[in-house]
Amino acid sequence: MKKVPKEELIKKSEIPSMKALKMHPFYRGKVQVLPRCPIHNYEDFSIWYSPGVAAASKEIFEHKEKVYEYTSKWNYVAVVSDGSRVLGLGNIGPEASLAVMEGKALLFKYLGGVDAFPLSIGPNLSSENIVDFVKLIQPTFGGINLEDIESPKCFTILKSLQEDPEVSIPVWHDDQQGTACVTLAGLINSLRIVGKKKQEVKIVFNGVGASNSAISRLLREDGFDINKSIFVDSKGILYRGRTDLQNKSNYKYDIAHTSNPENLQGDCGVALESADVLISLSIPGPEVIKKEWISKMADDAIVFACANPIPEIFPWDAKEAGARIVATGRSDFPNQVNNSLGFPGIFRGTLDVRAKTITDEMCIAAAYELADLVYNIKGCLTENCILPTMEYENVFIREAVAVGLKAIEQNIARLKLSEEELFAEAKRIIENAQAQTKVLMKKGFIPAFKE
Amino acid sequence: MKKVPKEELIKKSEIPSMKALKMHPFYRGKVQVLPRCPIHNYEDFSIWYSPGVAAASKEIFEHKEKVYEYTSKWNYVAVVSDGSRVLGLGNIGPEASLAVMEGKALLFKYLGGVDAFPLSIGPNLSSENIVDFVKLIQPTFGGINLEDIESPKCFTILKSLQEDPEVSIPVWHDDQQGTACVTLAGLINSLRIVGKKKQEVKIVFNGVGASNSAISRLLREDGFDINKSIFVDSKGILYRGRTDLQNKSNYKYDIAHTSNPENLQGDCGVALESADVLISLSIPGPEVIKKEWISKMADDAIVFACANPIPEIFPWDAKEAGARIVATGRSDFPNQVNNSLGFPGIFRGTLDVRAKTITDEMCIAAAYELADLVYNIKGCLTENCILPTMEYENVFIREAVAVGLKAIEQNIARLKLSEEELFAEAKRIIENAQAQTKVLMKKGFIPAFKE
Repeated sequence: MKKVPKEELIKKSEIPSMKALKMHPFYRGKVQVLPRCPIHNYEDFSIWYSPGVAAASKEIFEHKEKVYEYTSKWNYVAVVSDGSRVLGLGNIGPEASLAVMEGKALLFKYLGGVDAFPLSIGPNLSSENIVDFVKLIQPTFGGINLEDIESPKCFTILKSLQEDPEVSIPVWHDDQQGTACVTLAGLINSLRIVGKKKQEVKIVFNGVGASNSAISRLLREDGFDINKSIFVDSKGILYRGRTDLQNKSNYKYDIAHTSNPENLQGDCGVALESADVLISLSIPGPEVIKKEWISKMADDAIVFACANPIPEIFPWDAKEAGARIVATGRSDFPNQVNNSLGFPGIFRGTLDVRAKTITDEMCIAAAYELADLVYNIKGCLTENCILPTMEYENVFIREAVAVGLKAIEQNIARLKLSEEELFAEAKRIIENAQAQTKVLMKKGFIPAFKE
Repeated sequence: MKKVPKEELIKKSEIPSMKALKMHPFYRGKVQVLPRCPIHNYEDFSIWYSPGVAAASKEIFEHKEKVYEYTSKWNYVAVVSDGSRVLGLGNIGPEASLAVMEGKALLFKYLGGVDAFPLSIGPNLSSENIVDFVKLIQPTFGGINLEDIESPKCFTILKSLQEDPEVSIPVWHDDQQGTACVTLAGLINSLRIVGKKKQEVKIVFNGVGASNSAISRLLREDGFDINKSIFVDSKGILYRGRTDLQNKSNYKYDIAHTSNPENLQGDCGVALESADVLISLSIPGPEVIKKEWISKMADDAIVFACANPIPEIFPWDAKEAGARIVATGRSDFPNQVNNSLGFPGIFRGTLDVRAKTITDEMCIAAAYELADLVYNIKGCLTENCILPTMEYENVFIREAVAVGLKAIEQNIARLKLSEEELFAEAKRIIENAQAQTKVLMKKGFIPAFKE
């Protein structure tokens, strides 16, 4: 792998930013609302609005589930954020986060055929505020995507909503579940390459925010032995007795008490000795993870260095130090761990069976489907190809099928569709979204960019 | 005018309902979310989403007003309802109301080029809940359209939000302001025909809900002498001393104390003696208003009988009884008082100058523009043509211009545009919305309806 100087990489990272600054004010937003039903003339409004619509409303009033058939609820997802932890920018508030939430809505539609609408709310919201907000908008949406909400607030919010008996639509926090799903997919294939078993590998988690907490939970659910893992935050290894971890309400307290069996103390280097896997989601690198630490890992070490825009250690440095597989968050390095591989397909499948929630098992099913996409193509799975990219044929459709089938199996789906039906439905909806986009571009409604 | 039996009219009214029941489950919703920006390949996501979008968010964070340039906030309107008073259906709750709110969003886009999104919320919300909700979503939207919220809750909500110094986007309750605007337009032209002055006419308001309360307020603002009006509700004339009107917190208390100077008691018939104008928004007719009452009105009586689906009195009966001008809510009778004539143009103009609120003066400007559209076409203004229809050339564009100019004059506009600029902007945006709809239909993305 060709080494690239840090400066060059940073410069390269700035290209999308520079384009974004020019193109955002040109397009003035990323999504718009358009009709789904025909308007031949003004008389049609008497069907879609007063007086005709009253009959449709009455029907829903009498049979509440018909809201899924008479409105777009079946395909509406709210992208909800208070802007308290946006990308690498921290707490920039709701207005500034709206640009990101619109981008998310764009991905939802283009990749998953989902009618997602951005709802940046605030400012200064408590967990309770956000929980209440989601419950208020529940009648309109088929699902909720929480986004860029700071931890530990995001844990409380997701848990409250998932456990609330009054909430009957799926609620998803992409920074937790989405990241966990795609990371698991990459790890499944990494273990296939090195021939190690998930029950046996020792994992070090560097960074103990929303993502790594969720990843460790999902891995445990899938059968990884997380009790022998070690977690490291900015203050070093989490161990029982660490003075800042004595408060039981701190989520890191629990982690310290269910990991690190030898109760090691020290920095990430100490943790990594003889570890099989490093999953790092901490701060931008390089050299946040040192080469000499990697060299102390077990043979066939697997390194996920996923900070953006610069990974905690450069892939070539990790490889030189002995890592066999290196994944990052960057699209210009091999093995990008990219959230966008997850949520569009997962929501597509969830919505198509009208699932009441998204379970860990559904995430795991999506992860195995992603992993198998690569694994099942002969000669495709290599150290430099552990994950599919968005270009893989039918990647989101196949994920949707896997997720939908799992929901049906778990009896949380309102609709029971066959595998073939799920495939056809997801394919139709996603292809339709992309074809509509193409037509709007071709016809000049989405104009070509001019400086 | 050809008389039509009540049964036939009701039957005719049922046609849109029957179509609605078939077509709603076929289309499964009325609006969808689509891109506003180009997607040539997956690399474009690095501009619209991570990592590039971070630069746009940072820019908004540093210059908050740029949210109007870097996102769709400039054109987003939330259609908010708790479903507590939906059309003629009463309190049917948020799910059932969603079909209506989607219809409203459809009208917003097609007629006004506004990206409106339906937000049916609830259930069982207090005024405070709804006020708080609107304040929460303020960062995302350029304006708020409240819809189908029961009175007196709707009064409190609108007033609180309009007076709240923390709310810096326009909030509109269409059942109040929209109806008031279009009714005023019809009344302006009616008075032009009969040659009476607004300061002098005696008006009877039959029905004292959200609409008539708002209409009377707007007329007063425009110079009508509402103090000499009489208001009638289901219990008869509102008068000082009426036992159910002793509570000062009841909005009807105020009305009883600022109208009906002779403190008349009795039914609507008593009120109508020598009245110049009847504005009735009460319960479906016919014969809610009796012919003999109309015959006691002053010469050249003006009758607005706007209950749906059947007006409080049939136009031919009102005419036989001596009314010179009759308006209703029906599109198949002359002089339809149609809310849809108002909000799309009013919001277009409001958004295009980024007004901080929608003042009564802006509503009045819109009303005069609507009235003048008819008045200024030679020979157009007659007893049977007091209002334009949606087909009139540039009706929404001209309204937008009038509203935008008034906002600039009142110094509540964030942008100052010339009349020509306002016209061009509104025209471009509205025509674009309609052309996009046409293309989606033509290309089969919005398929033709099949039984």
